[in-house]
Amino acid sequence: MWGRSGWGPQARGVGLSTVRDLSVGVIGAGYWGPNLARNFRTSPDWDLTAVCDLDAGRARKVVGPRSTVEVMTSVPELLARADIDAVAIATPAATHAPIALAALQAGKHVLVEKPLADTSPAALQMIARANELDRVLMVDHTFCYTPVVAKIRELVADGSLGDITFVDSVRINLGLVQRDVNVFWDLAPHDLSILDFILPGGLAPLGVAAQAADPLGTGQPSVGYLTMPLAGGGIAHVHVNWLSPTKIRQMVIGGTRRTVVWDDVNPQQRLTVYDRGVDLSPAGRTDKAAINVSYRLGDAWAPALPEKEALGQMVGEFAASIRAGRASRTDGPSGLRVLDVLEASGRSLTQHGRLVAVGQPAELTEASA
Amino acid sequence: MWGRSGWGPQARGVGLSTVRDLSVGVIGAGYWGPNLARNFRTSPDWDLTAVCDLDAGRARKVVGPRSTVEVMTSVPELLARADIDAVAIATPAATHAPIALAALQAGKHVLVEKPLADTSPAALQMIARANELDRVLMVDHTFCYTPVVAKIRELVADGSLGDITFVDSVRINLGLVQRDVNVFWDLAPHDLSILDFILPGGLAPLGVAAQAADPLGTGQPSVGYLTMPLAGGGIAHVHVNWLSPTKIRQMVIGGTRRTVVWDDVNPQQRLTVYDRGVDLSPAGRTDKAAINVSYRLGDAWAPALPEKEALGQMVGEFAASIRAGRASRTDGPSGLRVLDVLEASGRSLTQHGRLVAVGQPAELTEASA
Amino acid sequence: MWGRSGWGPQARGVGLSTVRDLSVGVIGAGYWGPNLARNFRTSPDWDLTAVCDLDAGRARKVVGPRSTVEVMTSVPELLARADIDAVAIATPAATHAPIALAALQAGKHVLVEKPLADTSPAALQMIARANELDRVLMVDHTFCYTPVVAKIRELVADGSLGDITFVDSVRINLGLVQRDVNVFWDLAPHDLSILDFILPGGLAPLGVAAQAADPLGTGQPSVGYLTMPLAGGGIAHVHVNWLSPTKIRQMVIGGTRRTVVWDDVNPQQRLTVYDRGVDLSPAGRTDKAAINVSYRLGDAWAPALPEKEALGQMVGEFAASIRAGRASRTDGPSGLRVLDVLEASGRSLTQHGRLVAVGQPAELTEASA
Amino acid sequence: MWGRSGWGPQARGVGLSTVRDLSVGVIGAGYWGPNLARNFRTSPDWDLTAVCDLDAGRARKVVGPRSTVEVMTSVPELLARADIDAVAIATPAATHAPIALAALQAGKHVLVEKPLADTSPAALQMIARANELDRVLMVDHTFCYTPVVAKIRELVADGSLGDITFVDSVRINLGLVQRDVNVFWDLAPHDLSILDFILPGGLAPLGVAAQAADPLGTGQPSVGYLTMPLAGGGIAHVHVNWLSPTKIRQMVIGGTRRTVVWDDVNPQQRLTVYDRGVDLSPAGRTDKAAINVSYRLGDAWAPALPEKEALGQMVGEFAASIRAGRASRTDGPSGLRVLDVLEASGRSLTQHGRLVAVGQPAELTEASA
Repeated sequence: MWGRSGWGPQARGVGLSTVRDLSVGVIGAGYWGPNLARNFRTSPDWDLTAVCDLDAGRARKVVGPRSTVEVMTSVPELLARADIDAVAIATPAATHAPIALAALQAGKHVLVEKPLADTSPAALQMIARANELDRVLMVDHTFCYTPVVAKIRELVADGSLGDITFVDSVRINLGLVQRDVNVFWDLAPHDLSILDFILPGGLAPLGVAAQAADPLGTGQPSVGYLTMPLAGGGIAHVHVNWLSPTKIRQMVIGGTRRTVVWDDVNPQQRLTVYDRGVDLSPAGRTDKAAINVSYRLGDAWAPALPEKEALGQMVGEFAASIRAGRASRTDGPSGLRVLDVLEASGRSLTQHGRLVAVGQPAELTEASA
Repeated sequence: MWGRSGWGPQARGVGLSTVRDLSVGVIGAGYWGPNLARNFRTSPDWDLTAVCDLDAGRARKVVGPRSTVEVMTSVPELLARADIDAVAIATPAATHAPIALAALQAGKHVLVEKPLADTSPAALQMIARANELDRVLMVDHTFCYTPVVAKIRELVADGSLGDITFVDSVRINLGLVQRDVNVFWDLAPHDLSILDFILPGGLAPLGVAAQAADPLGTGQPSVGYLTMPLAGGGIAHVHVNWLSPTKIRQMVIGGTRRTVVWDDVNPQQRLTVYDRGVDLSPAGRTDKAAINVSYRLGDAWAPALPEKEALGQMVGEFAASIRAGRASRTDGPSGLRVLDVLEASGRSLTQHGRLVAVGQPAELTEASA
Repeated sequence: MWGRSGWGPQARGVGLSTVRDLSVGVIGAGYWGPNLARNFRTSPDWDLTAVCDLDAGRARKVVGPRSTVEVMTSVPELLARADIDAVAIATPAATHAPIALAALQAGKHVLVEKPLADTSPAALQMIARANELDRVLMVDHTFCYTPVVAKIRELVADGSLGDITFVDSVRINLGLVQRDVNVFWDLAPHDLSILDFILPGGLAPLGVAAQAADPLGTGQPSVGYLTMPLAGGGIAHVHVNWLSPTKIRQMVIGGTRRTVVWDDVNPQQRLTVYDRGVDLSPAGRTDKAAINVSYRLGDAWAPALPEKEALGQMVGEFAASIRAGRASRTDGPSGLRVLDVLEASGRSLTQHGRLVAVGQPAELTEASA
Repeated sequence: MWGRSGWGPQARGVGLSTVRDLSVGVIGAGYWGPNLARNFRTSPDWDLTAVCDLDAGRARKVVGPRSTVEVMTSVPELLARADIDAVAIATPAATHAPIALAALQAGKHVLVEKPLADTSPAALQMIARANELDRVLMVDHTFCYTPVVAKIRELVADGSLGDITFVDSVRINLGLVQRDVNVFWDLAPHDLSILDFILPGGLAPLGVAAQAADPLGTGQPSVGYLTMPLAGGGIAHVHVNWLSPTKIRQMVIGGTRRTVVWDDVNPQQRLTVYDRGVDLSPAGRTDKAAINVSYRLGDAWAPALPEKEALGQMVGEFAASIRAGRASRTDGPSGLRVLDVLEASGRSLTQHGRLVAVGQPAELTEASA
């Protein structure tokens, strides 16, 4: 059916599959857990067996009335169950590593809400353990499962954009000002995980510079900017902000051949590919004095995108990677790369916004531009 | 007449005024000069006497057919004329100071296209000379004469926004990649002059951090970001970009009480005032452990704005300040403040984007956030 | 939480109520039934007891896994159950009346998907039967339960708009071209039910003129226009269209004092109230030769609207009207008024689009304008 | 230069042409005359010799200061001048025919502001006289000279859209409520002239149905709807409205292959071509019982459009048609076809909106749909 919510029978493949459903327990019934539970429940791949939270009432609310999904309050008890194949962890970031390590130890496959962990050593430990035990460790980088990000990745990969010249990402809205996490840790994992997914070599900036402000005096930055020089001369920039009264979610991915604009609050045309830009004559690249600039002012193109809920795709990928015994599209290392940039942003903030290296505490010594 | 161009008789006060028109010569018939000439020509305050350019044909084209406006090719000859009260300089930035100084010396009032000069010492000299000779020195910060910027200034000044928490300005479009000027010097004067006009104390950031890229290898940055911590804990940020296929001109001015969004490419609703934001309990400000955050999700409001061409207002202000013997709304010092930030951005670029002080070459020693 | 889906515990009042939940069965598991089922299931007022469809598999899919909601295939068996208080009918329009009449006879309260019935005599019979048996008969005019329509109704009722001068509604999108129903019967019930809800006297046009086309030769109009002169000199107009590649859902409600624009595909600003318009001097109204027209070009205002799912509000109203023994906000007579206009549109189509009276087959003899 | 107003020397071909400029006088210095004068003045093809108005002051204002363009107050004197090749008439509609006939008689080529005349007999006389005297008679259907309309015409002509299924045009804004002309005569000439320009056979509807309202009691309809069945089963519809606080100028041109949406108030993307629609199997067209509907949900495409001022193109076409001795793209007959539909709309209004034939006062007897 057309332009409709697609909650129809044809939308799902229930009953067609001969493989047995995987059984999953969701740990954490706070903000994100209910979304995970809802998607596991309606997925053709999964059987949502239990929802676990210290607060039984909260878990019961997620399960809802007239349901046989179990409510549990003990993570160890959940992990001890032999009928559960996997767990999805949607608890505070600081608890991700201990719960995930226990779950891996218990033989479960593990999905973790972003960020993967609260420190990179913890993330490294999780990745190592999953490897040793041959379990899937996946991070819920939700946006990587949207049709629009899949399309952008494809356009980058097939050369439609040419070389990436700049990426500018804005993610601003009234947001919950939090005391234990700043605006970078809350919002930037989305932008960074998308960059990791679409950039040819993953998220590997030459450095990170961070600027931020806490104009309300809450003790945590609520407005922040990340700048990341890229190999090849390009630049990526992220603006995250909890104080904006309007929601802007826009990413521009500039390329030498074409440029993509993703406006996520415009459901009528989320993605536009512009065949416009600046051309240099071949000579221009080598001999700067003789540079020859020209412009292309071509058409724009809005590719048709399927309507698929990202979380549904994500839980499907979790099942597929378990069944195939392969890494998921958003695996532990991708979560670690995001974490590395977040940690670097903290170091830059303490150095007046100076560009710092990623992945090591030493100051970056090479210039960026 | 409604929603129409207003090129009607009622739009101008021709014939009502008893004061004699001021006589002006426009110097430079390149990109901006024709716009100045057009507005002087249709202004009730001015008599456009001459257009001067080294290339007579270019000047003649600005003057157009069946016109008695004179075409001149010599600036000294223009300045020597006793029947000319003022000149408007629209030549390359490096020539602003010498031409302006000569014009002041010749007793002319001077309007200069932005930026005021190419260096702050040159600008200081222009300001000093205009003071000594009691002539008006004005810089054409065009946006300061738009109805939307006038409204924003009013909302800031009357306390409607509360304290400014952040300003985020985006000015991106396909732009002429230039070899002698980078993207900051080309585009950021607009944003900086607007900030100078609307911020309570003018443009006086605690420092400037600049990040930029030249992904096409043209020898000049074509994508750039400026970050400026503000007194009081707020932050201003400017994104300028010559490589974007879409034109975005948006400024968000966040305040503790209300927040304004100016979307200049939306002629239907350029300015929206949001009565939304984050509130802290009074206790929260002093005792951070006990901070109490709440949210206002109020109405939005789009004030009616008159339709007035900014350049027409600007040349009117030039005449009014000459007649009243007062500084114009965008005087020499405002041009200098913009220049100081542009120069600081260059110093920051050479220091890996570190925050540097404005107005002095020494590195900033205080931390920003 | 801000700008988020609100699937949190605070969103619902489960456990707070001391009244017992009402029990409901949903009849029809095709396109709309699943939406009704989902909302009954998550409503604090309702216990979804059964889903009934001739196709058990389709009903089972609506119920989903790990659920104790019953699947039934016989309407008589459902109606015979004493533990069911109400039914919601989401079957083809021609079956609404027989099922509803049987349900009322069985003592059930009845909610019917729009349109109320396929003919006005059938609707009249349903209304009469519900009155005799003292049961609630309600039609699911979903849009009347959106915050935006509630706000518009309020603005009309409190005089903010003045007298209504015109209503223009556009509802176009790629739609399922159907063989048994034309575009008016499929889409216009939405517009007509909204008009019924917001106009001071309900939907009571002076006549209906309909124009339509079937450019693809499918046997049913897929593009249609309804024009309805209103008492007082105003006019309402509806454009419905299955062939448009873009989704436009826009309603402009013009008033002598203010005018409202509802753009339903703009989630950032669905509703804007314009303090603009045309003013006539008081003399103007009586003495046309001396008419004095002036214009107001005032501010625009976008009222904050709560985020509430319309269907959740609708099933809440169904419960509230049952408990209070009162008519619902979208009762049988409102469904009948919508039906009367739809039937009149058919008569107009057969008369070259001539204006015809509503509610009686005779041609309208008074002129409209 | 990019994204700029292009008021530069390269924009015009002054000096390149060896043909002598044509000399023109503009008659009427009210609302539209100044726009014509401005474009003749800056056109490489034309020499604006005189502006003529009964009110010399008004004409002088159009001419402006320091100009040798002559101000005249007598049309006969203007027409008597041998040095004038052509006149442009921008006076009230009722005076178009007498002035144009006199001008043709005097050997001038004639451009007339829309509508061509106030009655179709007057228009027929103008057309006949221009033919006899071998002069160009052209109507200023300005929109036909915009790049966007040129593109739409091309897309229709080359089959990109397939057969036209519907055209829906909305042109609403706060407009000058007028006592001597209704909203159809004021605004619909734009829509009708565009239809005439883009439809394969020109504007030749099977009939016209008009509905209108005068909710303010000004004596003239200020809200109006035109419906026009097209040969082949399609339908065209026009909504014109002086009372809307927001400006909507949108035209959707539906085709069996693709559909075009023109949103004239969105300068970022005025024109979008959607490769979406409804497909019928070949069998479906002949055997309705076996009809087979499917959907295409393809990409959208926004063709690059040059930035050209329509009026500049229009005066260029006037010169070109004079020089080539050919009919202009918007000639007398096109003005007459527009007039015929306007007159038919008046007849329909007096018959309760019934569909009436175009071009003859008799009622239409064939059904439309």
